[in-house]
Parts: sequence; C-alpha cells; structure tokens
Amino acid sequence: MTKILILGGAGMVGRKLISRLASNPITPDQAITVCDIVTPDSPSAGVTYVEASLTDTAVLRNLVTRRPDVIFHLASIVSGEAEMDFDKGYAQNMFPVWEMLEAIRATSAESAYCPRLVFTSSIAVFGGPFPDKIDDDFLCAPQTSYGAQKLICETLISDFSRKGFVDGISIRLPTICVRPGKPNLAASSFFSGIIREPLNGQRAALPVSTSVRHWHASPRSAAGFLTHAAALDTALLGGRRALNMPGLSATVEEQIEALRKAAGQSAVALIDKVPDASIAKIVDGWPRDFAPSRALELGFQAEETFDEIVSVYLEEDMPSA
Amino acid sequence: MTKILILGGAGMVGRKLISRLASNPITPDQAITVCDIVTPDSPSAGVTYVEASLTDTAVLRNLVTRRPDVIFHLASIVSGEAEMDFDKGYAQNMFPVWEMLEAIRATSAESAYCPRLVFTSSIAVFGGPFPDKIDDDFLCAPQTSYGAQKLICETLISDFSRKGFVDGISIRLPTICVRPGKPNLAASSFFSGIIREPLNGQRAALPVSTSVRHWHASPRSAAGFLTHAAALDTALLGGRRALNMPGLSATVEEQIEALRKAAGQSAVALIDKVPDASIAKIVDGWPRDFAPSRALELGFQAEETFDEIVSVYLEEDMPSA
Repeated sequence: MTKILILGGAGMVGRKLISRLASNPITPDQAITVCDIVTPDSPSAGVTYVEASLTDTAVLRNLVTRRPDVIFHLASIVSGEAEMDFDKGYAQNMFPVWEMLEAIRATSAESAYCPRLVFTSSIAVFGGPFPDKIDDDFLCAPQTSYGAQKLICETLISDFSRKGFVDGISIRLPTICVRPGKPNLAASSFFSGIIREPLNGQRAALPVSTSVRHWHASPRSAAGFLTHAAALDTALLGGRRALNMPGLSATVEEQIEALRKAAGQSAVALIDKVPDASIAKIVDGWPRDFAPSRALELGFQAEETFDEIVSVYLEEDMPSA
Repeated sequence: MTKILILGGAGMVGRKLISRLASNPITPDQAITVCDIVTPDSPSAGVTYVEASLTDTAVLRNLVTRRPDVIFHLASIVSGEAEMDFDKGYAQNMFPVWEMLEAIRATSAESAYCPRLVFTSSIAVFGGPFPDKIDDDFLCAPQTSYGAQKLICETLISDFSRKGFVDGISIRLPTICVRPGKPNLAASSFFSGIIREPLNGQRAALPVSTSVRHWHASPRSAAGFLTHAAALDTALLGGRRALNMPGLSATVEEQIEALRKAAGQSAVALIDKVPDASIAKIVDGWPRDFAPSRALELGFQAEETFDEIVSVYLEEDMPSA
C-alpha cells in the first residue's frame, strides 16, 4: 500500500495529478488523501478529502504522523496575492513548509521514516537580467515575495533532505498553458485565455505585444512532472534538489499561429489587442526561455511545439459542446 | 547622530568593525550599541553593550524600536556547530533574522523607518560542482545547514528590501585570514594557523595538500566590506542585494611562500604536514576562486597578494613580543 498525501490538491494541477495517479498508479495499491482549504465540487472517487488550511499546524502534523510514503506539496497562494498581502504570503507559502518538514523530522525521530516529498516550485525564483536561455547553473534572484517564498522552501527541503530527514525534490514549473476553466486575476492569465476563449467561441484580450516570449508546459506535462519526480532515483540529483522543468519557449505570435492551425482565422479574429502597460511590465520581468538539461537527462518531458499544447487542451480540457 | 546597532558584535569581525568605525566614523556623531551573548573582555570605549541572545525576541524588538540607522548583523553560530546541532542552527541563524525583519517592518508601520541593514553572509551558500571561477550569476546550492540558513536570510532581506521595509545588503565573506588569536574547531582554522603560529614561533599542522586552493580576505578587508556596504548607494544593486565579496585565491603553497618571504625558512619549518582525510574532504567541497565583478565595480576592495594578507596580520594583529 502506497500512502499518498496531496497538500493543496483541490486546484487544477491537483486534479490533473489525481487523474494521472488513477490511470498510472505509483503502486497497484495506493491510497490518496487530499488536504486543501476547499473540497472540490466533483471529488475524485476513492480519494479522502481533508478540508483544512495548512496554516493549521495541528492538522498538518496529524497528516504527517500517518506516515504517507509520498507527499505532493502543491499548496500556495498565487503570486499576485502574495504580493498584495505580505503577511499572508509568508504565513501560507513559507511557514507551513517549515512546519511540515519539522513534523516529518519529528516523525522520523520516533522510528525510521523518510517520505518522498515533491514540492511545486516556480520559475518565479528567477529575476532578471536574464541570459537568452536560463541554464541549470543560473542564480536565483526572486523579484516577488512568491518567488522568495518558493526559493526559501526549496532551500529548506534540500537541507532537510541532505540531512536524511526527508527525500525531497523541488520542481520549478513553467507557466501552465492552456489552463482549463475561466480567466483568473494572474498577470499570466492571458497566455491561456488567448487560446482557450477563441476555441470556445469567445473573445479574448491580449494585453502585450505578439513578440513577447514565454515558457510554457501543458497541465498534462505538469502532472507528468509530478509523478516522474515521485518515482525518480533522487541519488541522481546530487546536492541539487531543485530542478528547472522542461517546457516550450514560444512567442505570443507562435501561440496565435498554433491557434490558427487548430481552429482557423475565425478563432484568431476573436483576439482583441488591448495593450495593458502594467501587465506588459510584469511579464517583461519574467523568464522567457530555459536550457533545462538536467531535467531532460533525468527523463522529465514536456511539449515540443505549441501545436501539441493546443492539442492537449482539445483532447483533455475542452468543454464538450 | 547616527545610531549603529551591531548584532553579534563581540566576535573578531565585530571588534575589527568597531575599531574601523572609531577611526572612520559613518558620521562625526555616532552611537554604537553591540548586542551579543557575551561582553568582550576588553570592551571598546564609547560602545554600549547589551548581553543577550538574539533568540530573545523581546530584546531584539526592543533594540529595533530604538530605530538604529544602520544595523550590522554579524551574529551566527559557525558552520560546524550548525551542522552538529540542527535545531540550534535554525534557531540561531535563521529565525532571529526573520524576527528582526518583522520588528523593523512593525516599527516602520508606526512611522517612516527604513534602516540600512548589512548582513554577513558567506561563500557557504555555494555548493559544487564549481566552475574555475564563480561569477556573479552562479547558482546557490548550499551543502551545509549553515549555508542554507545564510541563503534563506539573504532571500528574506532582499524581499523585505524590495518591499521597502528595510534597505538591506548581504555580503558573502571569503574565509577570513589571518584570523588573530587561537586555533578554533572550524575546518578552515588551519588556513590561518599555518601563517599565524609560525609567525609566533609555534608549530602548526597542515591537514591538506599544498595544492589546495582557497578564497581569502583579511580581517581588515572584512571590516572595510562592512563599512563600505553601510554607505553604499543600494539603488546600484538593482534586484540583487547579495554580493560575492572580493578576495584573493591562493593555494596553500602560495600561502607558505608568503610566510617564507615574511619570516624565512625557519618559520616555514614549523609547519607539520599532518594529513587529515576528513578535513580534506570538507575543504574539497568549498569554493576556490571567484570573479566578483559587481562588488569590485561597486568599490569593495580586498588584498591582491597573500603577502599583503600576511602584512595585515603583522601590522594589526601580531601579539607584541
């Protein structure tokens, strides 16, 4: 029996992970517990849901004392919210990871216990100026509180792992595209919106220039990164347990061409150019391209063309008419 | 009146800083408060000493509410101790920095306050494999809890600074050589010992090969880094407030040659080769050379030959006969 704990598992990536685990279980016999502040509208069959905030240390400790074999830590408030509410950002994105690691260490002190921990970090750990491609040796210099919190968690996880208290790996996700569902308040929302809305016959606003380049991976790839990280031989990571995930570097123009190939000019015509200087400025500070050699050598895989990313949406996430 | 607070100011670097501030005050009228767990045997004239641990949050908050203009944060338990006592490392090297930053933020929320904070970080934030020279864009991958704690503090200080709560800068010190006084338990102790002991007519053990290369700066340079950082225009730092300090890359053989020039073959003959595999292994994991372009452009200065480093010891620290 493999006991799997997914912290923050009610979100989009969590749902993708759960459905991947259902079709590709880590072991034939697995038990999944999800802890999140909300229980999803359509809970997955066979999954135990615990509705709690990870700032509730007693709940967190209790979940750890059940000795899950694999912990996926996906819980986080988003970049924009962590930037607006400084206290909440640290309270939600940093301290619960410390508390979780301390709970794991306390549990391992009682009797041997060293779970695999897969932590979703972000390319927000990086800050400009950037080289054309960010390689695996490039410094972290976060320019948001969210990025700082992710970097701190990575550093803690690496140190607790080095000491043998946990077997952790931090995976720095590209921007997930095409996100299913509705637009959200994230500055990156339009990267999905300009594909998703036209495919669904709706208008979409493009706030930046079509020459803007960005780093993408599909929700399917994100779920694949997580399960691959859960099964990886971490001895191969050496002393560097934070990994830039593979992805696809594409300009907005290339995104639009992929949309045209998939759904024609009539879909492209639904994109309205609505320049927004504040979004353009935020996006200008984001990484645009990576050379994620280590992750590729370790077998992590992502899409190689934006056409594939559009196909994933059409196959998995497009609401049926 | 410039109010200066030195946290962990009773150690060797703190004493060097205080004496530099005495000869080169930040403003003609300055008041220095030192907080440390011990009061030095020979306290400096005109300095107020507060004997307390920085884990005493009430004391820390009280020191901050007095609104010092410049805070030097030198307090830390050393690498070896943080490695042996995991709890103590985080309790002493990480949490007090968080508490200090929160105290500064709380103070600034009452009425405008944004002190300059100079934090002594370390080249222990780096982990191998290394390039021949570590440049300013190289990743941090600490391989000790001490290094992890320093990196976390740097990240917090940068984020609190970006938000305007403090005006911080983290300086990553080379190994300080020649340390005055007695050998200590640090694995790096011999780098000073093989110079200091022979100059004082005593035998010294060399546990590693003479081909070992390491990154050095004198105690005088360390004090200079601190006062330069306190006066720096931090707008020049952009989004990267952690800086590799300049230093001198020298092999043990080059160190020994400098000793020979300063004190002759009779001094060199006092060095005993006593190979120690465990020290050799630790030292093998340390950075050997840097290209600290940013710090040099910003006016930080260190020695350029090991002869100069020996001279600094002879001029400032050699016990008089």
